Amino acid sequence: MKYPPSLVALIRELSRLPGIGPKSAQRLAFYLFEQPREDIERLAGVLLDAKRELHTCPVCFNITDAELCDVCADPSRQQNLICVVEEPGDVIAIEKSGEYSGLYHVLHGVISPMNGVGPDKLHLKALLPRLTPGMEVILATGTTVEGEATAMYLQRLIEPLGATVSRIAYGLPVGGALEYADEVTLGRALSGRQRITK
Amino acid sequence: MKYPPSLVALIRELSRLPGIGPKSAQRLAFYLFEQPREDIERLAGVLLDAKRELHTCPVCFNITDAELCDVCADPSRQQNLICVVEEPGDVIAIEKSGEYSGLYHVLHGVISPMNGVGPDKLHLKALLPRLTPGMEVILATGTTVEGEATAMYLQRLIEPLGATVSRIAYGLPVGGALEYADEVTLGRALSGRQRITK
Repeated sequence: MKYPPSLVALIRELSRLPGIGPKSAQRLAFYLFEQPREDIERLAGVLLDAKRELHTCPVCFNITDAELCDVCADPSRQQNLICVVEEPGDVIAIEKSGEYSGLYHVLHGVISPMNGVGPDKLHLKALLPRLTPGMEVILATGTTVEGEATAMYLQRLIEPLGATVSRIAYGLPVGGALEYADEVTLGRALSGRQRITK
Repeated sequence: MKYPPSLVALIRELSRLPGIGPKSAQRLAFYLFEQPREDIERLAGVLLDAKRELHTCPVCFNITDAELCDVCADPSRQQNLICVVEEPGDVIAIEKSGEYSGLYHVLHGVISPMNGVGPDKLHLKALLPRLTPGMEVILATGTTVEGEATAMYLQRLIEPLGATVSRIAYGLPVGGALEYADEVTLGRALSGRQRITK
């Protein structure tokens, strides 16, 4: 017995998605088969709509469906503060924290020689013309090896331009017990301790 | 900052898929955004193609793109042996074991009062007209509580019709879903099937 070709094609396309292996793709395909036609048409429709309408903001490379993204188009945001993140999802995460009112710059990746990603493959050079002396740049790439390397690379690039460079704080996740934190994190949390002010 | 509506729609549709939570859906959506237009169009295309071309076999309710499924259309299969499974994916799993040459009957679910699935919601009654005295029916529903209950229900239904009823052998780890079993275990479970005695 063989799978029908259209089922094989569907499973093959689904298994290309990140985090979906061959077994999950097969289960997803059978699930989709059981759904009503309208649901499948709506899913295919939103896929095509999203691809047609969405693009990166020409200034900060966040995802948008307008000429400029919501943040860049908002004059009430702090114009002398830029937060550099790896992915568009990081912008959402920071916005949800409600602690930030500056601008963003989305790299769309990290420097990763192992995966053949050099600085030229990121939206990295486009950050430099946005900088003016006295501005602050917060490097909010991840605390992975690649995130750290990218932050260091950016710091060297930005500092000569007269902008202040800072790195997002290392420490314990809020709600975390001390005994579950790893040594490196604990060390960083200690050395980065903040004075309690009233 | 708000997500563009087309991105919100895409994330909403993706998070409806089984095993994909809101965070995974968001990550998937950003991944899809980065892919070339051709890839997205191909994905949308195979979704629609699969939905248009695939349907259930009118005899055994397996998935097919032809009038009858490959198994029902093959006269060389043992015609006096029917294996009852929960899902179309289970047919593939059993075919891969190479231990089975009979026919199938796909229920498209299990009896599960907790989830409001009674016998009427399954392709269960359609099995009975296929049975003739002297035939063997292998109950290969999963070894979960619902799978066992479905097997018991079927046994009571089938035995009065003069068919021999057997249950797939407990070579399967109890509590496991059929499609996750490896081929060898599945093959052993099939060849070691036990007659159900009262």
